[in-house]
Amino acid sequence: MKIGIFISGSGTNMDAVVRSWHAGRFSQVDEVSFVLSDKADAAGLAKAAAHGVPTLTVARRKGEPREHHEARLLEAIVSYPVDLIVLAGFMRVLSPYFLSRFPGKIINIHPSLLPAFPGVDAQHQAFDHGVKISGCTVHFVDESLDGGPILLQKAVERLDGDTTEDLRQRILTEEHKLLSEAIEIVTTGRYRVSNRYVRVERNHES
Amino acid sequence: MKIGIFISGSGTNMDAVVRSWHAGRFSQVDEVSFVLSDKADAAGLAKAAAHGVPTLTVARRKGEPREHHEARLLEAIVSYPVDLIVLAGFMRVLSPYFLSRFPGKIINIHPSLLPAFPGVDAQHQAFDHGVKISGCTVHFVDESLDGGPILLQKAVERLDGDTTEDLRQRILTEEHKLLSEAIEIVTTGRYRVSNRYVRVERNHES
Repeated sequence: MKIGIFISGSGTNMDAVVRSWHAGRFSQVDEVSFVLSDKADAAGLAKAAAHGVPTLTVARRKGEPREHHEARLLEAIVSYPVDLIVLAGFMRVLSPYFLSRFPGKIINIHPSLLPAFPGVDAQHQAFDHGVKISGCTVHFVDESLDGGPILLQKAVERLDGDTTEDLRQRILTEEHKLLSEAIEIVTTGRYRVSNRYVRVERNHES
Repeated sequence: MKIGIFISGSGTNMDAVVRSWHAGRFSQVDEVSFVLSDKADAAGLAKAAAHGVPTLTVARRKGEPREHHEARLLEAIVSYPVDLIVLAGFMRVLSPYFLSRFPGKIINIHPSLLPAFPGVDAQHQAFDHGVKISGCTVHFVDESLDGGPILLQKAVERLDGDTTEDLRQRILTEEHKLLSEAIEIVTTGRYRVSNRYVRVERNHES
């Protein structure tokens, strides 16, 4: 199987996924086919290139309608057929049109226990709210903002004395593990979705 | 110190608190002064009576304005001065007027990781949403719906095969522990609230 990764920024989750792949932790992933960014200055692009992964940049032009930008996204990846698209810090909500091209084949990682704190800077939202527990979520992507069926979640404690950055880092460490785990589950088909609930068939060896 | 408990239903959390008190697990609580219900048929009333705790029932009359009902609540408890009011399945949002009579002295237990799933039947909401992790929260009460500063939270996993009732029970087990822990913290003054964040000073012996 082949996977593609969408990013918008530093690409640390993308980096963790590529490392997992290089370390042989995916039983069915033959290739990370591309890393695509919608920001020309995304620091993750250099990381991907350093791993030898093809990089694509499709920045949204000023005033460009979403549909047009998405058409160019599709155009950019058409020669890289993939079985799974992983949104790893990709800061756009994809349209039903785009999603319909990859039904059930797009996952996203989000740094909170959804449905709490959707949208941008979830860690800061959680910090300001004063929660004791936050975490991260991998979910299938639908047209809602961070609202698709949940595949995996991991709780992370906020500790007394934590800064926002401490919390962000502690969550990020778990994101790296959770996203690779999710990719292994999806690419091996070990899940069933029913009524928004994603049942994961656990690997008896793990 | 004296505490009062407000309930609306089965009173299982109230029951757990009274048992903790009887078992000597509160270092500063001399008395559970009363259990008050806003429902005449609350099953918890019989449990409280069985423990020898005075019970009060102040049902809201048909069409009665909230302020009037709250005035009767205050009237009912005026002869039972308490240092802390514990909402344990009490299904009403208290007005700023009521709250101002007990500033910072009312806590509530809620069966979700707030701010996710406020309001009624949080366990069912979480189940239907398809979360992998829910939990429970003890928070200070303000005029918002389940929105005051968070004192303690505990994460609880939803397992594959769980029914709503399984999840409810697993959360409830943790609620019982969390609420008693919260009462001990508040009645011993081992906390500080700043910018919505509640820092708990941990007991070095525990």
